Amino acid sequence: MKQLSSNRCFNGEQRIYEHESSTIGLPMKFGVYLPPQALKGEGELKQCKTLFYLAGLTCTEETFAIKAHAQAMAAELGIIIVTPDTSPRGDTAQGDHWDIGQGAGFYIDATQAPWTPHFKMESYIAQELYELVKTSFPVDPARIGIFGHSMGGHGALTLAFKYPKLYRSVSAFAPIAAPVDCAWGQKAFSQYLGNNQDEWAGHDASRLIAQKGKQFDSILVDQGMSDQFLNQLCIDQLEMACQQAGQPLTLRCHAGYDHGYYFIQSFVQDHLKFHAGQLQ
Amino acid sequence: MKQLSSNRCFNGEQRIYEHESSTIGLPMKFGVYLPPQALKGEGELKQCKTLFYLAGLTCTEETFAIKAHAQAMAAELGIIIVTPDTSPRGDTAQGDHWDIGQGAGFYIDATQAPWTPHFKMESYIAQELYELVKTSFPVDPARIGIFGHSMGGHGALTLAFKYPKLYRSVSAFAPIAAPVDCAWGQKAFSQYLGNNQDEWAGHDASRLIAQKGKQFDSILVDQGMSDQFLNQLCIDQLEMACQQAGQPLTLRCHAGYDHGYYFIQSFVQDHLKFHAGQLQ
Repeated sequence: MKQLSSNRCFNGEQRIYEHESSTIGLPMKFGVYLPPQALKGEGELKQCKTLFYLAGLTCTEETFAIKAHAQAMAAELGIIIVTPDTSPRGDTAQGDHWDIGQGAGFYIDATQAPWTPHFKMESYIAQELYELVKTSFPVDPARIGIFGHSMGGHGALTLAFKYPKLYRSVSAFAPIAAPVDCAWGQKAFSQYLGNNQDEWAGHDASRLIAQKGKQFDSILVDQGMSDQFLNQLCIDQLEMACQQAGQPLTLRCHAGYDHGYYFIQSFVQDHLKFHAGQLQ
Repeated sequence: MKQLSSNRCFNGEQRIYEHESSTIGLPMKFGVYLPPQALKGEGELKQCKTLFYLAGLTCTEETFAIKAHAQAMAAELGIIIVTPDTSPRGDTAQGDHWDIGQGAGFYIDATQAPWTPHFKMESYIAQELYELVKTSFPVDPARIGIFGHSMGGHGALTLAFKYPKLYRSVSAFAPIAAPVDCAWGQKAFSQYLGNNQDEWAGHDASRLIAQKGKQFDSILVDQGMSDQFLNQLCIDQLEMACQQAGQPLTLRCHAGYDHGYYFIQSFVQDHLKFHAGQLQ
């Protein structure tokens, strides 16, 4: 694991690392914000609450650190934030467009060529990177949560319901809540998983929640009502699935807000407080 | 004046505008954050405190909005923040390097070819854009301040001391505090102003302060002690000039912080509070 950069930020450190991923078979980068509580000397070092943040289409491991404005509250609450990249990188398996291939890994393990050798983002996030982060930073293993935006909101919700023992809290900004029913999800799932749609349901947040039932005391989802991609997100399906499953959901709809990071920065402090509460 | 974008942010709006600048002779872009207090209906509309933020080398009108994490506090305090671009843009007068020409206007009016027709950043910021902003947004004309970073810290300090009636408060992050004495300043001033060094002093913050004497109740300057450009900034000269001039200065040196926006975001809230206090 190689540290590519470290910048002091709110008395903590915003860092970028690169490592050779055996799951992906390529070098992968990730960001980590270490709050001041995670940087104390040996002995007085605290085990910190830790959040994985999964980003949306076209983003990288650095997007959240630059644009989400979360470090101030993370420093206040003593939360480590880990920000993986959104796909494998390099010359292999370039997509034909911005919504497939690089920057668009969709947090699933591909079963179809040409994606199979590298596009294993689910196993990478939930196994390899999870273990690496747990052993490399002062992470409290019983207090790990996950959140994300858009494609990463889909990733956060699906990984949380697939692995509720790994992630004890979950929230999302404008998630792709039912990818089986939207163009982005249909394109990605058919390319990565093939045309057998029975397999798709296991990677669709709304269907997963309906199937698995209540797993969390609460889920927080924020949605802008001027979101230019609202018809891709199917938030109403998430709401229905949670109702049917008895899964408590706080869905907040915000007039005037769109899909971008000016929306995220406006509510990210609430998400960190929500996770801090859930992870008590 | 054309609005290129508007994004809701902390119940205000982060906007980008473009206008035909008669001073520059080219289209110029600028950003403006309008806090919720500036967006109320006619009649109840408040006149807001307003800050001009001048960015550093290579930055644009969008850098501060994305990277400085200032909108939360600006919304809380009801402050409008205007973020001009750092130079004229377009095919004319490209520089030979990142520290001259485009992205490097140094907030002065060039007197030398090939820069003279367009590089009039001092007049643009202090006259044309100042008037445009005052008449286009709910700006309280008696409560306008200025701050900046690096090259923009130089710009903020020099414009504040040249035009203390226009700017009633001033602060800076890691400013180029004595450009006459550093490589960046010498290159820019010789290209934009020519080789008569007597003219340079009038655009050097430390020399201007020594010459003009106390103009402000207080100045706030933050400086990272791991700043990779510390030797270009000459902060000690600023400190000496303020002492000699009887100009109160709060200079805060922060161990471990570097020159970038992770440093700025860590202290920007303090700067907004400082200006809000000065502009009472």
